[in-house]
Amino acid sequence: MDIIYKLDKTSDIPLYIQIQNHIISNIKKGNLKNGDKLPSQRELAKLYDVNRSTVVNALDELISKDILESKTKRGTTIKDDTWSILSNQNNLNWMSFAKSGSFYPNLNTVRTINEYDNKNLIKIGAGELSDDFFKKDIMETILNDMKVNINSLKYENAKGSYELRLLLCDYFKKIGIKNINPDKILIVSGALQALHLISIGILNRNSTLLTEMPSYVNSLRVFQSADVNLYGIKMDENGIITKDIKKAKRISKASLLYTIPYFHNPTGVSINEKRRDELLKICNDLKLPIIEDDTYRELYFDKPYKPLKAYDKNDLVLLTGSMSKILFPGLRLGWIVGKEIIIDKLADLKMQIDYGTSSLSQEACISLFKKNLLKKALDENRKELKNKRDYMLKILNMYFKDIASWNRPNGGYYIWVKLNRNISLKKLFDNALKNHILIHPGDIYHHSMKNHIRLSYSHASYEEILYSLKTLSKLIQIQNH
Amino acid sequence: MDIIYKLDKTSDIPLYIQIQNHIISNIKKGNLKNGDKLPSQRELAKLYDVNRSTVVNALDELISKDILESKTKRGTTIKDDTWSILSNQNNLNWMSFAKSGSFYPNLNTVRTINEYDNKNLIKIGAGELSDDFFKKDIMETILNDMKVNINSLKYENAKGSYELRLLLCDYFKKIGIKNINPDKILIVSGALQALHLISIGILNRNSTLLTEMPSYVNSLRVFQSADVNLYGIKMDENGIITKDIKKAKRISKASLLYTIPYFHNPTGVSINEKRRDELLKICNDLKLPIIEDDTYRELYFDKPYKPLKAYDKNDLVLLTGSMSKILFPGLRLGWIVGKEIIIDKLADLKMQIDYGTSSLSQEACISLFKKNLLKKALDENRKELKNKRDYMLKILNMYFKDIASWNRPNGGYYIWVKLNRNISLKKLFDNALKNHILIHPGDIYHHSMKNHIRLSYSHASYEEILYSLKTLSKLIQIQNH
Repeated sequence: MDIIYKLDKTSDIPLYIQIQNHIISNIKKGNLKNGDKLPSQRELAKLYDVNRSTVVNALDELISKDILESKTKRGTTIKDDTWSILSNQNNLNWMSFAKSGSFYPNLNTVRTINEYDNKNLIKIGAGELSDDFFKKDIMETILNDMKVNINSLKYENAKGSYELRLLLCDYFKKIGIKNINPDKILIVSGALQALHLISIGILNRNSTLLTEMPSYVNSLRVFQSADVNLYGIKMDENGIITKDIKKAKRISKASLLYTIPYFHNPTGVSINEKRRDELLKICNDLKLPIIEDDTYRELYFDKPYKPLKAYDKNDLVLLTGSMSKILFPGLRLGWIVGKEIIIDKLADLKMQIDYGTSSLSQEACISLFKKNLLKKALDENRKELKNKRDYMLKILNMYFKDIASWNRPNGGYYIWVKLNRNISLKKLFDNALKNHILIHPGDIYHHSMKNHIRLSYSHASYEEILYSLKTLSKLIQIQNH
Repeated sequence: MDIIYKLDKTSDIPLYIQIQNHIISNIKKGNLKNGDKLPSQRELAKLYDVNRSTVVNALDELISKDILESKTKRGTTIKDDTWSILSNQNNLNWMSFAKSGSFYPNLNTVRTINEYDNKNLIKIGAGELSDDFFKKDIMETILNDMKVNINSLKYENAKGSYELRLLLCDYFKKIGIKNINPDKILIVSGALQALHLISIGILNRNSTLLTEMPSYVNSLRVFQSADVNLYGIKMDENGIITKDIKKAKRISKASLLYTIPYFHNPTGVSINEKRRDELLKICNDLKLPIIEDDTYRELYFDKPYKPLKAYDKNDLVLLTGSMSKILFPGLRLGWIVGKEIIIDKLADLKMQIDYGTSSLSQEACISLFKKNLLKKALDENRKELKNKRDYMLKILNMYFKDIASWNRPNGGYYIWVKLNRNISLKKLFDNALKNHILIHPGDIYHHSMKNHIRLSYSHASYEEILYSLKTLSKLIQIQNH
């Protein structure tokens, strides 16, 4: 090992990361080989001219990554493993450090939430329908219909099943999108894949996306992984503050606006009709294309708004939607609707990355439309979600009145709770976990949302809502900071 | 428009592309606006100091891309369209030109093949089972079983259904992979997605992948789009020439080897057992991880080989496989098997890009395994594919004996035909199309394969095989060059 090495103490890259990089580069160069023993921690601290705790930090992470091995008797040795090195080469944590350390600070919480997602916890913030919403009867009808209809199961064409896209045209016309045909529709494997395709297909590296602040995409890595920057625009009770868009575009040089205008994630807010007009007008003036994330559309409790796309004369809007939030998450079926040349390009890209969405899921969706099963299912889901919203608001009123404020969503899943005083969300998250409750802290949707929690009435049962909110209220009140 | 502009005539970027870039940059800067008229072609030729045909080329493409509009009376005008500009900003054709013009010359052919793929043509080179191989009875049994078993349809956990991964463990043990558990398996949406995940998840931009020359991946954009370079290693009748690997790695600084050791695409060649040992030994010595593309495995006509992964003591091999080639293409279901830390990382990435493979497809696959339907289906497919191989070889013998040579594959789909003399594959492709035959020219698998054609006995019927080969033989013989 090349021991004459000086760390750069002025660098944004933390010292323990610099030490890790130095060790790895020595393994790569072959200076350190399988079984080689590293100097003791004390010696390393001296060599690198850092505290011993910095060395411990550096070594611990390399051990957890299978690059080093700690044998109490022999000290720390090299566990030379080609895959470990390879898999850690572009480790995202490291990359984020390399990018000055301020990149995606909430990543760890999101990962923790994903990890706990399959555990037996009460998911009071989960963005998913619980099994209580599963329609066994509808699934049976679909499967029976598929038995008759499926006579092959081959690769679909690039934009997805033509029959399905025809059926979707009818649906889009019903929600107000008149200027539609199957060539303007791409079937994708869920709305998240839609964003992945858009991020790698039509956005350049280092371009910027305007979004609501907070926004679902802040908790996603899909744009960040494509090196697309996010620039947030504030919201009020009627959605994104449209008058801020012009300035934001000028400052950020953004090339797209991403919005969830209906039952916004995480706030539950909808853009009202007056502001929808304003939004379209401003974006038309600025020639700023819009991604309209319309995934929660069908979960309205009052008279529904039309999508932005319905008023979009200049094909400025790319609308994404999906079956995941409204009926069957596991179908992994969504769509992108918009200008044909963009749809063509994204379709070409989709063929390159997975050669199309499951034909089985597409067939299931065809049966769902053809057998007129969707309306009945959605009527039931809307009714039940509305009941659960009312119940959650009632319980909030009982236990959160003195410690927080919140909104009353007219559809979708989410209630955005703002605590009256500053407490550590991280600590609250941990304390809730100890009580078997998984919460979604507000700061994963924007780092400034340190007093917020996203609640959802889509997943937890009535009993679980009562228990969780009662417990959280207590935890919040006894938490010091 | 800024008319004082000098094209760089020494650049690798073709002049007509430079003109296009200049026009677009003027639109972006706002110097050219919607409806503005361009100077006449003659004037432009003078301004840019090029032939008029170069101007025509430049304008034609911008018109086809919806950026310009040609109105006979008014000349060429700007059709200012935000999406057009955006979608063409990172247009891949342009990018490839910008990268010195030698990048992926076969792209157009691949795109043409994809476009014609859904037309009513004889696909004599298609890598897909025809509808004749569809097992209606098996699909019915599966759908019946699903009716009983599906009690929810939610997001699966990151690596895919645990039940399915357990069933796959049994399967992997049967083919010789002993050291396996569900945590080492990731369910993906087909083997192509496996490559997409690997390319963006564990390979750095500008890293290099060793591959067989020719190789399926040369016709794919999945690695190229992730800025991964390909470096080819020659093959003989027993597969990749192992003794060339060491030097290739040194020269190319490659970080992975991608191989299709069994029923190679496009050549149909398999690596024999002796050479499998050599390959593993060399890669172990070089610490060169292997991606083993095992998609055609189950389509053997003789006693099967074990996968490389079965002999892989050091977890050097990442094996990919899928249901697509052996039974149901439209299921879009495949897997990656390998070292757990890599599988973890790829699973995390998969959640980021599409939140998991269709639960419906996964359930179908569970039924397929649990009801023991796979063996019967594969026995039938192997038998029929073998018959069709024999038939194709017979017809080749009748019509190609004097004009080409070819191999005799022991499984899979492909026969790799080498023509005895140089003719233009492009011309042959076009002439074949006129006769309703879609061929796969060899040069899409490596630019040097200018005398080759990939034939497949998986898709065309017996009659179509006869007609195509008879016709192609005639076309080849009458073609001048």
